[in-house]
Formats: sequence, structure tokens, C-alpha cells
Amino acid sequence: MAKIKLGVIGFDQLGQEIVSAVQKQEDLMIASVFTHFNKKDLSSEFQTLPLHSMNEVFEFKQEIDVLIVCSGSTIDYPSHLTDYARYYNVVEAYNFYAQPNLLINSLESMSPPPNKLALIGVGWNPGLYSLNQIMAESLIPNATTYHFVENEWSQKMTELLEEIEGVAEAKVFLNAEPTSLEAVLAGQNPNLNYSDYHQREAYLVLEEGIDPEKIHDQIQVLPNYLSQAQSHLHFVSSAELAKLSQDKQAGRLIRSSSDQKELTTYDLSLCLSHPLSYQANILMAYARAVFRLAKEGKTGALTMLDIPLSYLSKLNRQDLIDQYL
Amino acid sequence: MAKIKLGVIGFDQLGQEIVSAVQKQEDLMIASVFTHFNKKDLSSEFQTLPLHSMNEVFEFKQEIDVLIVCSGSTIDYPSHLTDYARYYNVVEAYNFYAQPNLLINSLESMSPPPNKLALIGVGWNPGLYSLNQIMAESLIPNATTYHFVENEWSQKMTELLEEIEGVAEAKVFLNAEPTSLEAVLAGQNPNLNYSDYHQREAYLVLEEGIDPEKIHDQIQVLPNYLSQAQSHLHFVSSAELAKLSQDKQAGRLIRSSSDQKELTTYDLSLCLSHPLSYQANILMAYARAVFRLAKEGKTGALTMLDIPLSYLSKLNRQDLIDQYL
Repeated sequence: MAKIKLGVIGFDQLGQEIVSAVQKQEDLMIASVFTHFNKKDLSSEFQTLPLHSMNEVFEFKQEIDVLIVCSGSTIDYPSHLTDYARYYNVVEAYNFYAQPNLLINSLESMSPPPNKLALIGVGWNPGLYSLNQIMAESLIPNATTYHFVENEWSQKMTELLEEIEGVAEAKVFLNAEPTSLEAVLAGQNPNLNYSDYHQREAYLVLEEGIDPEKIHDQIQVLPNYLSQAQSHLHFVSSAELAKLSQDKQAGRLIRSSSDQKELTTYDLSLCLSHPLSYQANILMAYARAVFRLAKEGKTGALTMLDIPLSYLSKLNRQDLIDQYL
Repeated sequence: MAKIKLGVIGFDQLGQEIVSAVQKQEDLMIASVFTHFNKKDLSSEFQTLPLHSMNEVFEFKQEIDVLIVCSGSTIDYPSHLTDYARYYNVVEAYNFYAQPNLLINSLESMSPPPNKLALIGVGWNPGLYSLNQIMAESLIPNATTYHFVENEWSQKMTELLEEIEGVAEAKVFLNAEPTSLEAVLAGQNPNLNYSDYHQREAYLVLEEGIDPEKIHDQIQVLPNYLSQAQSHLHFVSSAELAKLSQDKQAGRLIRSSSDQKELTTYDLSLCLSHPLSYQANILMAYARAVFRLAKEGKTGALTMLDIPLSYLSKLNRQDLIDQYL
């Protein structure tokens, strides 16, 4: 089997995760990596990669089946993406600049239309949750959708606490509010406000000699702190905080419909202790899909919502049907 | 908005659920119901439906956009389905006779090829679980997939216990074995055999004057009973059994990958206290998809795996992208 030849543009953490992920897949290979980094600044494990500078990206049109764009909004802009999409089949990692419909329009209105396929906004949230939400909402009408996070780091609240005098380090996480989650799972279809969904767990490392009680009182009166969610303060050591600060994220999408007698729930939990490697795997599976669809002659701009799930798998359609239906 | 005109062939419980489900959807309507029942044998709520006999099914070619085939294997055979598919866009409820690839082949080899679209094997297990499994396995490589059931009625075991003298009624349910489930959720990637997955909860109503101890001893020595799964016996009243015997089903699909430091899980739980109405909703959403795809000129035979999720929603693609990505 000829391998699918991938180009990767952008070689920060995500780009490096993609390279690692591809190395474990027998149907994919890295044909080129385009980066602003100098080769000598990269660790030894990457020295054997086909590394090129960003401005060489258009010189490999013949050698790349799908270009994965993960350079992020600090380097790339929508205009760059349309440039790439003119010459390559493209898979773009989710970027917050990417208002998907605008980007789709700019890709689809290119003149002359490129004979290539672009897939934009690929990620897990939005992305994978979106797919499941659309599925759940289509299959369970007259129900309510809930979306909880678990261990989600709150950057804004963390920064707020770090500014307090006497606080050496801080970390704030959002977790599902247990009674709200219970009510949803019991089919009570509660009407949840923003503040009902989550509670905050704030972990603080204090400077030496600082009185926890004082810090506690200062935090209690912070504007919007108590009003937006239930909050719990924990005073920990620097080592304990480091352990808590692992990159772990989780979330839960619940669609629930109930009346007196019946309860239907669609309940998806994702737990990702390393979200970037998960993101790399998603990009890989969708690169596979883009390769196949492009081979079938599909062109234009798509999102994850437009791609049949069978295209993500390494297995061919007949094997999938035999094994899964 | 013109409504999508649905035909329903087969009017047992599932057909009736479809009619009820469609009545709550503003974009769908029932154009015809084909049944073996006489109109006079149906309850009053169905008397206003456009009811027709089975052999009139080919007389409504102009009036039906999508025909939902839920007459089941007792009435229909693959050859019937190919007959229907010659003249109608078809959505077929999952049938165990339907070896999907054989059916797809017979549909795709029809001569002359009908200018219609057929979607076969639509259901939730296989079906919805299959979609999620393919998604999870494509997005989390190098992991293990587990599939637990909850409250699943075991017909075979129930019948076995009902045959015992002194047993008036019985019901056996399968539930996830808690320690196995815990090990999976903890990321231990256990290697589970059939007997490790589930435990049996057997509920028995005894005839008057029968000694539970004696029945207990008889059951302990049943061949294959203890060896296949952990079993628990409960002696209950007839009323208690009736309450337990609701149609509820649930299941859990877990894909889990872990090493020492990282844990990734994709964990989908479905709880359906009324599986048939859920099945009706699935058929409805896929009828919508078939209507749209057929309108775009798609013909041939498809499965759920071949359909982008955006086609299931009442919302159009642009709204979906705006609201979900």
C-alpha cells in the first residue's frame, strides 16, 4: 500500500505531536515539515525529518498529498490558507480566527477555483463535540443538551488570583457542579444558568509567612468571583500544584429527554490527559479522509460535519460494513 | 417549507412509533402507511391516517419522497427491498436478515439501475454505536474498545429459568460487571473475556408454597449458568417484576488508551427507556438525510456510515456551521 504523503506547516507543539502520531500509522508518512525554526534549534529526534523553511511551502506540490496547517493564528491568516488551498489539499487545525462560514466562502469563491479540497476548523471542541451534538439533537428531538467541563483550566480566574499580593502561584479549574450534573442524569431536565453548571476549584501557593485566612477573605470579595460559580479554595504546596497542573481536560455532552415514564439520554464523556496528542490524531484521521475524498474528485471547502465517518477509518468501506453493522 | 412526504411500510409497533414521531416534526409528514392490518382493527387514533394495503405500495410513486421500510423480516425479504428500491428512495430499519454487504450488492447490481437512493440497516445497535465506535477508533489509535450493556434483557436465560418447576415468572437482565467497568474507566486496559464483561441479575416469581432455597440450588447447577457470568438471584413479587420489566435498555461504548502518564477515553452511554421510539427517531432523521442526498442526485445503496452527520439535522449546513463550529 502506497502511504499517504503528508506535509505539516507549523512545527510548534502541535506540529511535533503530528509527526509523532504519524510515525505510528502504517498508512501515513511525513513528506515535508515547514517551519520558522532553524534545524539546529530542534531536538535531535527531529533532525532526520524533511525540514524546510516556511517560504519553501509551494515547492513541493508534487510530493504532498495533504497539507496539514497547524501553524496557528500567530503565523497564518485566512489569506494564507487560501494560498495553500490553491495548490494543496488542506486540513486546517481549529483556529479561533476562522469564522468557518467566512473562510468557506473565501475558499469557495477563489478564481479560478482550485482543483483541490480544503477541510477547515478540525478539532475536538468545537469539532468532535459538535459532531456528537448534531447527532444527538437530530436523533433525540424535544430534549435538552448540556455541556459540562471537567478539570478545565480557567486562565482568566487564574490570572486574577495570581495578582493578589502574597500569592506565589495559582491555578483555577472548572468542574461540573455535582447537583446540576446529577439532576441532568436523573432526567429532571433542569434549566441551568451559567453559574449552575460549574464550580471552581482554586489552588493557591502562598508566599512564605502569608496568612491563608487573609488571602481567603480577599478572594471572597473579588467582584464576580463568588457570583458566577460556586468556588472552593485550596492552599497547596508548589509541588502539589505542579502535579495538578497537568494538561488534562475532560468534558461531557449530555442530551436528555424525559417525561414521567421515559428517559432517553445520549451521554458522551471525553477525557484527555494530553489534548494536543488527541488533536494530532484527529488531524491525521481527517487528513486520511481528505485524501480519499480528493481522490474521488471532491473539491471545494468542507468542515468535519460534511464528512462521512467511514472516511476516517483505516479500514475500507466494505470491511467497515462487515465488521461494524 | 414543503414537507418531506414519508411512506411507512409495516404498521406494527415500530411503524406506529414512526407515525407518532413524525407528527411532532414540522418538516416531515406521513403520506401513506402500508399495512396488512384492516383499518377497523386499528385503534381510533390511527383511523384518520392514509392507510393502504401492502399490495398498493407501488401505486404512490408520485406522492412519496422516502419510503421507510419497517415491516421486518417476517414480511419482507431482501427481494422485497430491491422491489421497493426500484421505485422509491428507501430507508430500511435494521433487520438481522440484512447482511449489509450482500444487500448492498444486490441493490447496486440491479438492472437497469434505479434512479433512487436506498439506505439500509438503520438502527442504534448496530448503527449509532457503530458510528461512534468507528469515530472513536479512528481518532484514538492504539487503544481498546469495550462495549457494556445495562439492563439488557436476556431472552435465552429468561426462558431457561421459566422452565424450572415452581417458577411462575422470570426475567434475567445483563449489567456491566462493576469491577471490570471500573478497571476500564481507570485506564487499566483490562483484557476482558465474555464472562468478565457482565453479571446477570435474575428476578424470579415463585409459585405459592415453593421454597426459594430449593429453586436457588437448582439454578446453581444449571449448565453454563454460573460459568458464563456472575449471577445474582432475586425473589420478587409479580408486581415488582412487572415494574422491572419496562422496556428500558442502556449501553456504554468505551474506547480507552493509556500509558503510565496519559489517559484518553471516549465514553458514550445511551439510556433508552423506550427503544422503539428512539428507533423511530433515528429512522426519521435518516429519512431526512436520504431526501436531501437524493435531491442532490445521489443514487445507489448506502449505510449510516456513508452519511455526513450534517444531513441528519433539520438545520441547513450554513446554520450548523455557524452554531456548532
